[in-house]
Amino acid sequence: MNRALVLSRAPVPNELPAHCVSRHVVRVRFGETDLMGIVHHGTYISYFEVGRVEYMRRRGLDYNSWTELGIHLPVVEAFVRYRKTARFDEVLCVESRLTELTRVKVRFEYRLLRGAGDTTTDELVAEGFTLLACVGDDHVPRRIPPNADAILRGPELNSEVFPEVKALAAR
Amino acid sequence: MNRALVLSRAPVPNELPAHCVSRHVVRVRFGETDLMGIVHHGTYISYFEVGRVEYMRRRGLDYNSWTELGIHLPVVEAFVRYRKTARFDEVLCVESRLTELTRVKVRFEYRLLRGAGDTTTDELVAEGFTLLACVGDDHVPRRIPPNADAILRGPELNSEVFPEVKALAAR
Amino acid sequence: MNRALVLSRAPVPNELPAHCVSRHVVRVRFGETDLMGIVHHGTYISYFEVGRVEYMRRRGLDYNSWTELGIHLPVVEAFVRYRKTARFDEVLCVESRLTELTRVKVRFEYRLLRGAGDTTTDELVAEGFTLLACVGDDHVPRRIPPNADAILRGPELNSEVFPEVKALAAR
Amino acid sequence: MNRALVLSRAPVPNELPAHCVSRHVVRVRFGETDLMGIVHHGTYISYFEVGRVEYMRRRGLDYNSWTELGIHLPVVEAFVRYRKTARFDEVLCVESRLTELTRVKVRFEYRLLRGAGDTTTDELVAEGFTLLACVGDDHVPRRIPPNADAILRGPELNSEVFPEVKALAAR
Repeated sequence: MNRALVLSRAPVPNELPAHCVSRHVVRVRFGETDLMGIVHHGTYISYFEVGRVEYMRRRGLDYNSWTELGIHLPVVEAFVRYRKTARFDEVLCVESRLTELTRVKVRFEYRLLRGAGDTTTDELVAEGFTLLACVGDDHVPRRIPPNADAILRGPELNSEVFPEVKALAAR
Repeated sequence: MNRALVLSRAPVPNELPAHCVSRHVVRVRFGETDLMGIVHHGTYISYFEVGRVEYMRRRGLDYNSWTELGIHLPVVEAFVRYRKTARFDEVLCVESRLTELTRVKVRFEYRLLRGAGDTTTDELVAEGFTLLACVGDDHVPRRIPPNADAILRGPELNSEVFPEVKALAAR
Repeated sequence: MNRALVLSRAPVPNELPAHCVSRHVVRVRFGETDLMGIVHHGTYISYFEVGRVEYMRRRGLDYNSWTELGIHLPVVEAFVRYRKTARFDEVLCVESRLTELTRVKVRFEYRLLRGAGDTTTDELVAEGFTLLACVGDDHVPRRIPPNADAILRGPELNSEVFPEVKALAAR
Repeated sequence: MNRALVLSRAPVPNELPAHCVSRHVVRVRFGETDLMGIVHHGTYISYFEVGRVEYMRRRGLDYNSWTELGIHLPVVEAFVRYRKTARFDEVLCVESRLTELTRVKVRFEYRLLRGAGDTTTDELVAEGFTLLACVGDDHVPRRIPPNADAILRGPELNSEVFPEVKALAAR
């Protein structure tokens, strides 16, 4: 192995609408810290998952939907870049954005923000992405069903945008 | 954000000796699986950490060493690519390789293997890397001390190579 | 060891006011399930912790308060009894009640409920308790400061009771 | 609720052979600590699980056995009492003892020890128990199959007792 895995920015192959984003609030749990007094790096992967699940739920795709469709979306790649330390009991905003959607793969990018809900001025705590593959109950690759594809590309179903983030900002 | 984070292979800036590798065995715990019946993707990050800690311990750097030096090595980037599903109770080999060592950063690449300990024929379950930054107790960047640098570039201290992997192969 | 550890009901030594309770909502994360498709039993311990932290926060005791007082409250005993299976993505209510408060120890009892926020009719998913000991930064037992004791025995500071549970019920 | 859950010692209803014990070594992972610098209390529940799985494996019951029998053994009660703080990178011995086995329930008691493998002089870090119920794939209670019952009451199958603990003592 004389070549290292490196990460860079590349053009996104298929543009997705600006509404393909959801924001969700998490509070750091005690057991998610480590002896350095900060959030353990593995925890961010779990926050990304919470954000991604919320992205789907707000568009009407809960876990039962996937089960009925007979498919799963296991993670095949995950990346996290840590920018700032986060500590116990802090409230963070997970921003999940759909950045790629092909016949068999779904890609989300995440930003973990600290602040009052203004995503332009809030401090970036961490960022990253996950790539998911669509598989059947037998773990064999499957095409993402057209209705699921349409829902993923759509906006949040509830008209009020980001109620939790607003509530946080109002405190 | 019109450019996505992508991962590719790039030339390694500074070559490191072939002995800069350690292998360690982990067994999948029940609580590390998820409802898909497979190892939860966040768990791999934890296995990488176990492998990295073992790499350092076999060269004489335990956690007390870092504490005495007054430094920490928090993870600033982590990446995992999942190749094959792993399940509860499986025995996996974590191969941790030092691939970059600068004045302030340490990079490890990992391969998670299933098999009898032959790293050329064993099945690749997952691979990835972590980038660590050297910081002081105040979380401010610090230069890696020369003695720690030398130890990290060195071979394992115990003469018998990979006893655990051998024991596994002998079963 | 010819006698087993058993659990039973016993009179509570010091009665505490009925207002010594807080309720908080958690949603089951994907990584908190296991291959049986249900919430992994270790996860409940983490939910109890979330509930206990919230009990204190709503009375004005956040983590910084404890740090300024120079004390910690590590868990010295924890018990969970599982009643019903809970699954991925379910919304559960953690009810945390202060049931004992001596000079050096704090005891909380928990009920994990599934339902719309009516704690008399909601289904009991799990129950348990944790016993915490007050220690200094050196992990040596310390008396709980009188002001912390008074706050723990007090009611929630915000007038609106259980806003999250109400919000859940309204959906 | 005017009576608290309390824990005490009680006579064991059915005596089990002295060979109904297994010992297994775990090393504390970085992500298992918390900001107090010690092992997070929820982690002990996970160590007990590792010990229990090992108890069964050494008697020939691996997870596939249970799957073939069509049964699961979910945890219905878990208790931990913390005696001493354990820290990152420490090596601990999990002692798992079968203390009760009825037609539908299995009870294990655990001692977590720090030391060279001498269980009479080693320091007790934590102790506790778990009660498991036998259920079918449908989560409905099932009788423990006679062959599984017999195996659980039997000794470890490999003649060499506690090889890992011996290896640890030899270092």
